Amino acid sequence: MGVVNNAWKLASRPDGDIEQGDLEWVSETLADPAAGEICVRHVYLSLDPTNRIWMSDIDQYMPPVGIGDVMRGGTLGVIEASNADGYAVGDWVSGMGGWQKYTVSAANQWQILPKDTGLPMTAFMGCLSFIGMTAYFGLLDICDPKPGETVVVNAAAGAVGSLVGQIAKIKGARVVGIAGTDDKCTWIKNELGFDEAINYKSENVLETLKKHCPDGIDCVFENVGGQILDDELTLMNNFSRISLCGLISTYNDLDAPGPKMFRNILMKRIMIKGFIVSDYMDRAQEAMEAMGTWMMEGKLQYRIDVRPGLENAPQEVKDLFVGGNKGKLMIQISEE
Amino acid sequence: MGVVNNAWKLASRPDGDIEQGDLEWVSETLADPAAGEICVRHVYLSLDPTNRIWMSDIDQYMPPVGIGDVMRGGTLGVIEASNADGYAVGDWVSGMGGWQKYTVSAANQWQILPKDTGLPMTAFMGCLSFIGMTAYFGLLDICDPKPGETVVVNAAAGAVGSLVGQIAKIKGARVVGIAGTDDKCTWIKNELGFDEAINYKSENVLETLKKHCPDGIDCVFENVGGQILDDELTLMNNFSRISLCGLISTYNDLDAPGPKMFRNILMKRIMIKGFIVSDYMDRAQEAMEAMGTWMMEGKLQYRIDVRPGLENAPQEVKDLFVGGNKGKLMIQISEE
Repeated sequence: MGVVNNAWKLASRPDGDIEQGDLEWVSETLADPAAGEICVRHVYLSLDPTNRIWMSDIDQYMPPVGIGDVMRGGTLGVIEASNADGYAVGDWVSGMGGWQKYTVSAANQWQILPKDTGLPMTAFMGCLSFIGMTAYFGLLDICDPKPGETVVVNAAAGAVGSLVGQIAKIKGARVVGIAGTDDKCTWIKNELGFDEAINYKSENVLETLKKHCPDGIDCVFENVGGQILDDELTLMNNFSRISLCGLISTYNDLDAPGPKMFRNILMKRIMIKGFIVSDYMDRAQEAMEAMGTWMMEGKLQYRIDVRPGLENAPQEVKDLFVGGNKGKLMIQISEE
Repeated sequence: MGVVNNAWKLASRPDGDIEQGDLEWVSETLADPAAGEICVRHVYLSLDPTNRIWMSDIDQYMPPVGIGDVMRGGTLGVIEASNADGYAVGDWVSGMGGWQKYTVSAANQWQILPKDTGLPMTAFMGCLSFIGMTAYFGLLDICDPKPGETVVVNAAAGAVGSLVGQIAKIKGARVVGIAGTDDKCTWIKNELGFDEAINYKSENVLETLKKHCPDGIDCVFENVGGQILDDELTLMNNFSRISLCGLISTYNDLDAPGPKMFRNILMKRIMIKGFIVSDYMDRAQEAMEAMGTWMMEGKLQYRIDVRPGLENAPQEVKDLFVGGNKGKLMIQISEE
């Protein structure tokens, strides 16, 4: 018989914040891998703002998680049992394993990770994952910042935002980051090399942006939405660009209004484009090579925030919406 | 001594709708043209939604009209007196003459119109003006509709919208227009060849759009904003495009919220871009040739709505905001 699995299943759709009871903790024994399948023991679970989108039954870029289904999530793990050619016990793999301790599923839904890279395995949940691709393609494909242009990134100490700012610096832009604590601001300015940092909880964002962007804003990498987006729109230059990666301030409120300064998209001839990293899968190699090179050269730093215990996932994920995490948030489900 | 001029000057900035007293009727005698200047007798004054933007002291694509200045506006006129080489008395010219009977100004601020085209002079306020360029570049440069794609245009019986729909049909797209009366809907469907028309005042826009766009919406040419934009966003396809030309529903309300379905720009990876026709001035020839050719081939129809008397301009312009005009709205200031 197979392994005993624990999983968080979606029991009801949250109305606003995620509440106790929206996710249900279950225990079940899994079948052994059938032909072409593998059994993966999850080591790390990625917690991401988009998790909240997947819980809502709204029009979105993937189907919402069904009621009664295991909550969707990105995982890194180790193969425990294999019934598929080319997948060996002990190999590290990444895939959408979900909020559970084990998965038994088709091997081709998993990607085998390279061995002996000299990098920690958690890099495959950061720079060398869809997180890194999100920063790379969202900034370079949509905003395409030129040397000397001013780039504003919000959720700037987050997993994606912190990479976006560093890539923009590599490209020669002036970078202003917006984050939610003094500690985060100090980190992105002193450690990551952002030109300026704004604490949106303690400073007037519009006035501070004005001060730090004396030539206006040319590019915005948007993770947040809401009032911060309005403040940015107010200061954007003619022919500026917005890469719309996320709207985390609105995920718990489906009735949130759109930006009041929407009219500036017209007045300033702004281009705004939404994107989802999965649209770029056929160019993954390009991003991995660039990000890997920059990491080796010491030009990209990242910070991880690992919380122990799958049983805590529903509580820990909420930190993303109040800025409680410091770097890429993940759950350690089992030992490496 | 020069001519006796009448002009509408901006006396105060409207708060919401334009009210009596916001514009002041003045009479003054103009000096004769100095060297390099001409005196133009205005025949037609263009009334456009953007007039309302220019009256507000908000960040916009041109400076707002100053208090005490003649209201800005596009004009066609005839040279009455010339002190500039190459500008002959009797020549037709177009330029930003403003809301007045005469202008005395530098000749190089005017463009001499071609003679003997076989077209009525009013064509130079329609297809062959910035109106035509707005439709041409806004649709083709930003939306770039492909044959078989679904294009939605609102204010579809207006000066710009009616041309946009016809150009989209020329390009092989399926076109759905949104307008405000049954008469307008009949006109765009039966006379202009739109595939479907929706009367937004008598029909549920979202439900009717769903019916008329069974494959979703690929392109939107946006003139209106507000709830109509929300309804369109709800039905837009992945990788669809919005050409943001105007937001007429919001010009009288600076506190209007942005679109509630803004999140679909992210979910559906929509590209939205604002534009102002003046950005395309260096490509004017391209548009004029295409639009002129289509007119000659009978593929482009337009309708004008000429109101007599400059003294009525402040009242007549308000029709634009309630859909009271039928075609390109203009004032006849003097006889051809």
